[in-house]
Amino acid sequence: MIQSPGIARMPIQKIQDTDVLEASDELAVEEPLEIRLQYGPAGGRQEQSISITMRTPGNDVRLAMGFLYTEGILPDAGAVKGTYTGIPNSILISLREDVSLDLGKLQRHFYTTSSCGVCGKSSLDSLRTVCPSPAVVTHWQLTPELLHPLPGLLRQQQDIYGSTGGLHASALFHRQGHLLALQEDIGRHNALDKLIGWALQEGQLPLTDHILLLSGRACFELIQKAAMAGIKVVAAVGAPSSLAVELAKEYDMTLIGFLRDQRFNIYAGTTRIRV
Amino acid sequence: MIQSPGIARMPIQKIQDTDVLEASDELAVEEPLEIRLQYGPAGGRQEQSISITMRTPGNDVRLAMGFLYTEGILPDAGAVKGTYTGIPNSILISLREDVSLDLGKLQRHFYTTSSCGVCGKSSLDSLRTVCPSPAVVTHWQLTPELLHPLPGLLRQQQDIYGSTGGLHASALFHRQGHLLALQEDIGRHNALDKLIGWALQEGQLPLTDHILLLSGRACFELIQKAAMAGIKVVAAVGAPSSLAVELAKEYDMTLIGFLRDQRFNIYAGTTRIRV
Repeated sequence: MIQSPGIARMPIQKIQDTDVLEASDELAVEEPLEIRLQYGPAGGRQEQSISITMRTPGNDVRLAMGFLYTEGILPDAGAVKGTYTGIPNSILISLREDVSLDLGKLQRHFYTTSSCGVCGKSSLDSLRTVCPSPAVVTHWQLTPELLHPLPGLLRQQQDIYGSTGGLHASALFHRQGHLLALQEDIGRHNALDKLIGWALQEGQLPLTDHILLLSGRACFELIQKAAMAGIKVVAAVGAPSSLAVELAKEYDMTLIGFLRDQRFNIYAGTTRIRV
Repeated sequence: MIQSPGIARMPIQKIQDTDVLEASDELAVEEPLEIRLQYGPAGGRQEQSISITMRTPGNDVRLAMGFLYTEGILPDAGAVKGTYTGIPNSILISLREDVSLDLGKLQRHFYTTSSCGVCGKSSLDSLRTVCPSPAVVTHWQLTPELLHPLPGLLRQQQDIYGSTGGLHASALFHRQGHLLALQEDIGRHNALDKLIGWALQEGQLPLTDHILLLSGRACFELIQKAAMAGIKVVAAVGAPSSLAVELAKEYDMTLIGFLRDQRFNIYAGTTRIRV
């Protein structure tokens, strides 16, 4: 069996009641990744550290691309001249010489947070400067019958990657219910950045015909990232936050929570669900 | 019933199978909090934004104090001259004029991350500069019988705060098993910062006779914060990450994971568990 770089095996003691068993356990690997950006005209190239994130190794290029895209720094996949991963736990994204950069958006990262990853002095206000109002209007609808099986499909795929119990997953489904991609990470934002980075590389953006499924809770930042990718339907196995609901309404998104055991709650965008 | 500022009630649609029910749901409130620091000698006072975190309102002073303490910026509760909360979603911590500040530690925050909240160019290296090796050696031991009931005690208390399903909890137990304090937040680091801020205000640091119980997973940053507070035993209801285990070993801490249903796993510091 090939071991994933995202999983570490270690000896542990298992206790049941008062009995001890020497055993071995699989853990989700957590390591820092520094995302660096190279930009500017030929002869005047500059390099800057944009973010350090604690992530599960694997798909680092996708993670960096998705992060830079959802933060409004990277306009499209074509803006990237090259990616360099030679230094462990560091990735350099080099932009084409003719790509102009809004340095204010880089500055935003000087104020990133220690928790949910939202940046800027007033997060809702600064979000609006990054994320344009959605130009695309969608008319398709979903049925409960299509939604109920999605968490099961996600779990089936997750099992392949090991049972550390420590990984968040973001999965992308087509609106007809088939799974297109799944990404995992110890950080829920990273899992979504990897997924959006994948879509960016595959030329699939904007994701207006898709359903994003989150294995856990839906917080503000995940909705922000989904909005940047053009996603109109987000379903979470866990609870949404108040601000996640507020933002989903503002961006005309459908937000579903507690999708499990043949139940779910609709927090925003009920018209997309046909019951 | 008095509504907590941390809970928002809103109308939703509940779907079971294909049936629709108009209902109302309680959500965990998520709002930004800017933490600002005022420091320097009389006549030369400066003010700086240190961090913006997405948090659940309530206990903002504890949150800010715990954050500044665990980041190595605030040496003790006595260094604080005053706290100002007049501006919504903003808190200003004013340090006494004679408190000298390591500006390098402030600088660290210019590189905070969008996920698990770890700062600095090389997180493990920079952590060592913040967190001195533990000077305290503890000799007490715990039994499985004492540990098994702790998640139940935490849940009992959590229920008081509502059933949004969206809040992380950090609880502090005395080593003899009684609950001393519990704090909740939409961000797991915030819940722990609030708890350590409480201990700081109460003059309880270092927490060398205590057990920290985390309602979810144990990642690197939570172990880092626990180490800063002198905590020697951390138990998580969820999984630890690889780096959390590494750090716990380095700081001679006991790290327990999957504490539930009369079972747990010991990932570090087995000698403190008497079986």
